[in-house]
Amino acid sequence: MTDSAPAIFTADDYRARMARAAGAAADAGLAGLLVAPGPDLVWLTGYTPPAVTERLTLLVLVPGREPVLVVPALEAPDAERAVGAPAFTLREWTDGTDPYSLTAGLLDPEGGLGVSDNAWALHLLALQRALPDLSYAALTDALPMLRAVKDPAELELLAAAGAAADAAFEEIRGLLFTGRREHEVGRDLAELLRRFGHSQVDFTIVGSGPNGANPHHEVGDRIIQRGDMVVLDFGGLKDGYGSDTTRTVHVGEPTEEERRVHDVVRAAQEAGFRAVRPGATCQDVDRAARAVIEDAGYGPYFIHRTGHGIGVTTHEPPYMIEGEEQPLVPGMCFSVEPGIYLPGRFGVRIEDIVTVTEDGGRRLNNTTREMVVVD
Amino acid sequence: MTDSAPAIFTADDYRARMARAAGAAADAGLAGLLVAPGPDLVWLTGYTPPAVTERLTLLVLVPGREPVLVVPALEAPDAERAVGAPAFTLREWTDGTDPYSLTAGLLDPEGGLGVSDNAWALHLLALQRALPDLSYAALTDALPMLRAVKDPAELELLAAAGAAADAAFEEIRGLLFTGRREHEVGRDLAELLRRFGHSQVDFTIVGSGPNGANPHHEVGDRIIQRGDMVVLDFGGLKDGYGSDTTRTVHVGEPTEEERRVHDVVRAAQEAGFRAVRPGATCQDVDRAARAVIEDAGYGPYFIHRTGHGIGVTTHEPPYMIEGEEQPLVPGMCFSVEPGIYLPGRFGVRIEDIVTVTEDGGRRLNNTTREMVVVD
Repeated sequence: MTDSAPAIFTADDYRARMARAAGAAADAGLAGLLVAPGPDLVWLTGYTPPAVTERLTLLVLVPGREPVLVVPALEAPDAERAVGAPAFTLREWTDGTDPYSLTAGLLDPEGGLGVSDNAWALHLLALQRALPDLSYAALTDALPMLRAVKDPAELELLAAAGAAADAAFEEIRGLLFTGRREHEVGRDLAELLRRFGHSQVDFTIVGSGPNGANPHHEVGDRIIQRGDMVVLDFGGLKDGYGSDTTRTVHVGEPTEEERRVHDVVRAAQEAGFRAVRPGATCQDVDRAARAVIEDAGYGPYFIHRTGHGIGVTTHEPPYMIEGEEQPLVPGMCFSVEPGIYLPGRFGVRIEDIVTVTEDGGRRLNNTTREMVVVD
Repeated sequence: MTDSAPAIFTADDYRARMARAAGAAADAGLAGLLVAPGPDLVWLTGYTPPAVTERLTLLVLVPGREPVLVVPALEAPDAERAVGAPAFTLREWTDGTDPYSLTAGLLDPEGGLGVSDNAWALHLLALQRALPDLSYAALTDALPMLRAVKDPAELELLAAAGAAADAAFEEIRGLLFTGRREHEVGRDLAELLRRFGHSQVDFTIVGSGPNGANPHHEVGDRIIQRGDMVVLDFGGLKDGYGSDTTRTVHVGEPTEEERRVHDVVRAAQEAGFRAVRPGATCQDVDRAARAVIEDAGYGPYFIHRTGHGIGVTTHEPPYMIEGEEQPLVPGMCFSVEPGIYLPGRFGVRIEDIVTVTEDGGRRLNNTTREMVVVD
């Protein structure tokens, strides 16, 4: 779910991010961070290995020391070409030698370490054997907000990705839905995302009629019919940053009930958006959206959290969910996406990416949230 | 690196695989296996979640009990559609509840567990907290050969994938190399793999001239010139099973030295292949190939192991490497791919997938291993 790093960041940007991460680790009382290939590594170094395999690649960040990237010797030439390479030291290891003892040698034998969520169990277990007296915590538990606050350049990239997704929606709403299969519309969405600059499409959900009542239905063979509600949820990466937006359209004129449900979701999405301001908590956003749906009597049919963060991935902290008391901070970016799912009948979801500003929130998706009638 | 499961396997096949895995766990003294999304889960159940995220999906195999798949409620409809679904019980969890204590409830509080290599650290650490008295081992350490011995249907799929890769090579060798960029030839290779039935292309390495001396160079902007050696290493998944083959071609007539190096690699590959037989060990294959290269004086330039297993991924145990004493068993499939890399000059690698038969080995790649001269 990551892409190569966008060209606008320099080695100095990556150096600053690594310093910020090491500082956050020290503040949290951690002895260091172990960063595996994936979004954390891309964000910190600009480096994506040619493949993620059983061969250990690991960025070791220890407060007060130079960052070190442990890499298989075979991949050292790739790592040397990363934009952030001037900001770290490379430690190569060759097949047949032990990369875990090499890594252990870079760390003090005691204290706590933060580990990328998506680091492989294979590697973590080997490190736990090599360094049995250290404690280990997942990065989203230890430093959940490490990548959450975006700088102005990142916000610009996220806004551009959002605008591209919006452009895709403006095109798709003009195309024919009736009589086509969900996966055909999904393919159109993917092509549109790419046409508007996405290098990677992460998902194109087309949930028509009863399929819309399964929030994670992707696309199927179902032929879209007149009278269908159709949930369109799509996104991916453009220049290394994510888009994710949902609109629910109707094929032909909706019934009164369909209109009512859509209105409830729209009001819930609006309420969630209005709850976004510095100092409010993540769960406040969830509660604000959920209250509207509960008050309308559809509480049991809103079966997921209200949102998730977005950045170099389309799915990351912070999460807008009951129990998450993390305060919102200007620069955070996340989805606000309530929905109502009536099993066997239809679903409605409306989703914008929202960023926290100094005094409220700003939407990075700006197509109409009124129900769009398509042909 | 996984694909959806091929249609030829039935729920009974997956039931048998899960029983075999649980039996192997019991034989190894393990209390159970925790199988994360990825190749292990595809192989055992045919199930690939719509996305791999921070939401836990985990197959819990305990010897003597029914297999249980823990899934996010949102994805339960997807899991129910898996071909292997009749062979496991689904345990859904909803956002806001704790999937780790749910998982812990399925396990005895003591003993050892095998965990998929690619399970996320996030999940493993949470399980270690929920079940602190259990010990954990990566599946390639605990049961490295779980997926290594292929049954006849799997061998047929691997042979078909190999034949498709061979067909791609037969086409590419007839195309123009001179004056084209590596990534153009790489794109041709990817298209050819797809044309011959691959649903997923994992890698298309085109290492021309000095780029060929970096064994993991993928494709670059370099314009291929007359006089270049070009390493072509490509593969992916066809019907859920992998291909991976390498041939090194020459643009125009090679020099005597180039011919000599190619001959040494060809002899090494042949020696590695001839070492394949039941009862020989993985390291025997590596040693046989390496000895030829060392005897020719190129030992320091063969900088990787001789091979890796292949199946529902293009990279898995068994590994043909010094120190791996695993005996070869009929049905195992792996690459034999020695190479010589002369820094700044050129590289040569020759790779076939080989399967162990009752009395030796059988190649699943059968294009010529003589040096092919291209235009």
